[in-house]
Amino acid sequence: MPTALSTDLYELTMAAGYFDAGMERAATFELSVRGLPPARGYLVAAGIEPALAYLEELRFTAPEIEYLRRLPELRRVPARFFDDYLHAFRFTGDVWAMEEGEPVFPDEPLLRVTAPLIEAQLVETALLSIVLFQTSVASRASRMVRAAAGRPVYEFGARRAHGPEAGVLAARAAFVGGCSGTSDVEAGFVYGLALAGTMAHSWVMSHDTETEAFVRFVDMYGDRTVLLIDTYDSERAVDRIAAARLAPFGVRIDSGDLVAESRRVRARLDASGLEATKIFASGDLDERRIAQLVERQAPIDIFGVGTALSTSSDAPALGGVYKLVEVERAGTARPVVKLSPGKGTYPGVKQVWRVADRGKATRDIVARSDEPPPRHGRPLLDQVMRRGRRVRPAPTIERMRARALEAVEELPAEVLRLDGPADYRVAVSDGLLRLTGDLQRRMHAVAG
Amino acid sequence: MPTALSTDLYELTMAAGYFDAGMERAATFELSVRGLPPARGYLVAAGIEPALAYLEELRFTAPEIEYLRRLPELRRVPARFFDDYLHAFRFTGDVWAMEEGEPVFPDEPLLRVTAPLIEAQLVETALLSIVLFQTSVASRASRMVRAAAGRPVYEFGARRAHGPEAGVLAARAAFVGGCSGTSDVEAGFVYGLALAGTMAHSWVMSHDTETEAFVRFVDMYGDRTVLLIDTYDSERAVDRIAAARLAPFGVRIDSGDLVAESRRVRARLDASGLEATKIFASGDLDERRIAQLVERQAPIDIFGVGTALSTSSDAPALGGVYKLVEVERAGTARPVVKLSPGKGTYPGVKQVWRVADRGKATRDIVARSDEPPPRHGRPLLDQVMRRGRRVRPAPTIERMRARALEAVEELPAEVLRLDGPADYRVAVSDGLLRLTGDLQRRMHAVAG
Repeated sequence: MPTALSTDLYELTMAAGYFDAGMERAATFELSVRGLPPARGYLVAAGIEPALAYLEELRFTAPEIEYLRRLPELRRVPARFFDDYLHAFRFTGDVWAMEEGEPVFPDEPLLRVTAPLIEAQLVETALLSIVLFQTSVASRASRMVRAAAGRPVYEFGARRAHGPEAGVLAARAAFVGGCSGTSDVEAGFVYGLALAGTMAHSWVMSHDTETEAFVRFVDMYGDRTVLLIDTYDSERAVDRIAAARLAPFGVRIDSGDLVAESRRVRARLDASGLEATKIFASGDLDERRIAQLVERQAPIDIFGVGTALSTSSDAPALGGVYKLVEVERAGTARPVVKLSPGKGTYPGVKQVWRVADRGKATRDIVARSDEPPPRHGRPLLDQVMRRGRRVRPAPTIERMRARALEAVEELPAEVLRLDGPADYRVAVSDGLLRLTGDLQRRMHAVAG
Repeated sequence: MPTALSTDLYELTMAAGYFDAGMERAATFELSVRGLPPARGYLVAAGIEPALAYLEELRFTAPEIEYLRRLPELRRVPARFFDDYLHAFRFTGDVWAMEEGEPVFPDEPLLRVTAPLIEAQLVETALLSIVLFQTSVASRASRMVRAAAGRPVYEFGARRAHGPEAGVLAARAAFVGGCSGTSDVEAGFVYGLALAGTMAHSWVMSHDTETEAFVRFVDMYGDRTVLLIDTYDSERAVDRIAAARLAPFGVRIDSGDLVAESRRVRARLDASGLEATKIFASGDLDERRIAQLVERQAPIDIFGVGTALSTSSDAPALGGVYKLVEVERAGTARPVVKLSPGKGTYPGVKQVWRVADRGKATRDIVARSDEPPPRHGRPLLDQVMRRGRRVRPAPTIERMRARALEAVEELPAEVLRLDGPADYRVAVSDGLLRLTGDLQRRMHAVAG
């Protein structure tokens, strides 16, 4: 979990600079995603509650402060920055955010921080790394769950995740996106997610016979047992299960041609009176493979997905930004903009509206926060923190998941396509366009 | 950092099964990578020391045990598994591993665990997630550092990492692979890495003028300052630096055509008497972009790389495995093999030899650990833990980095090519091939 030092050095050098200059002005930053990964038509917001937990709990410990004080990079920073400011540091800002599970599109702020400049700046790195990764995973999970067309999808990717914490965050985000559970026990412990597991090839290989390995596991786990049957030969394994009069909950196939293999195994199970035994499939699955298996009517009941979920392998990084959009000058909040080539931003504090027609979302509008609501528009950003404290308890993770499952289906069908999704329309309000144009002209004048 | 619950549920259900069956037999598992990512000719082993730290510190806390005890999935597990076994659990095994920084190739074990079956199995998930990710990042870092041809490369990717911990692990692995430091302060705190940082666009934008922003930062950080100059216009920014009589250590460019931009900025700096000021480039860099910039003689002195390093974006997951290769039966260690289609393994405990000719590695040989050394062969696996304790202090991270820089250069030039690298030859010893054939025949007979 993040610490106060989970940040880039420059956040701290700038913080010390603001402190030294007495720049306590308020600032607003907005976090958004810059573009969609190639195949994806939509994203699902995730990671918001972990981000809020980080903000609430943010403290500098004495050893952390000592470490910073001794850094050669900070040697000219006045001692009171360490002794007074960091020692007493708390995040005291306001935060607006989308609900986790809400579909979100590029250039829509999904989190907004208004706080004294130094605080708002310091939390940039951690907020980005918490929110972007989980949003990427939740979005991919949503695609897989839709491809599975009602069959449960479990997240099994802890071993390929970017370290143990990434595995937990991926499991959480996959659940928000619609998965039914995870194999990651720590994720179950921390977030209360449903757990699932089967057995590994090593269980079979470490017994003298496959039958012995199966009998032992069923003895232990009864009607919850899922037996892995492809260590040697799947059909013979089914015969052994039947011969030993076992009735496991399921069998897992993890290799080979899953269509042919699942059909053979289904036939053999049925012929052995094991009609109730489910088939669990795993092994390098992703949304396309799942869609193919479903389309070809492979008799698979449950999918286990690893790497594709836990590393969000098609989009291991979302291009997200956390941009200064407003800063107080002479006591008044003023919108700001940058002009860097290809990296321009929309200034000012914003709201995102989702406009619906007969239960279907037709477009989003990114507007200045003080513009009147559009007709049939639903605001997506809501205040979640005031002065550093949450304004209400975190929603349950089941609620986030339900939100995702419901709200994704409100998107136009062509946006939801697995391949070649259509662009969803995200409009910029006239008020925001005007403000942007005015400011760009003014800044070019200042820069010029 | 990993906990005892950083594991897949099936590791625990199998553990309980082994415990219940009184299966205390010893087993050996080997961790290896299954194949090279498309563009890469070699990998650099990393994550070994964090993996050993995990094994040494592995304990189940009382709340963790209580959580497990209440899991419906474990409800039939005897109470003594929780009360006696997990309560007193320690990792007591032996570990052999490659040194971090050592080049490694597919199907070469880079870590080997020999322990009571239940312990060796339980640590699978965490070991894979720790070692594979860091190995992927260290390997990519090595490619970037080579592409930079002597110019320092810094890791700046914390914000795009898969959560804060992944950022720290990536920073560490990038350093092992040859990077000069990181922007991730937590990585500096935990691993003693050198830190680097500049300033963000928001620093410039939150001041009334760019000049004021520059002057303040130089006042604070003196001759260590790196000024970000592309918020409005890079050349004008240089003029402002010169007009204010500032002499920063460097300037950073983060956007636009870096070749043209760096040339213009260099010329402007030189014309202003700022010949000593270095140019720092960042912005979606990877090894190919770095190689192009070097080839086109862009006057860039230092590179900052983000996403491509911290998510190992071209290979966000290495296909690694942790496979049972030997298990005790009737008091004797016996090699085992699995036959799953496309997922076969080499049985038995192995050593990896690197054979060199006049200082250049010519091939590796994967052999049974009891075979005699090949001529001019250097063994890559060394014992690092005995009965759950390290046999020697961890090498310093600087030593790992030096190892990587040196050992990578011993590989054949064609293997080191950035594009279309040649295959490095990894041979399987006659002894290992014989053992594999014998066992496969025997297992087919058993399975048949």
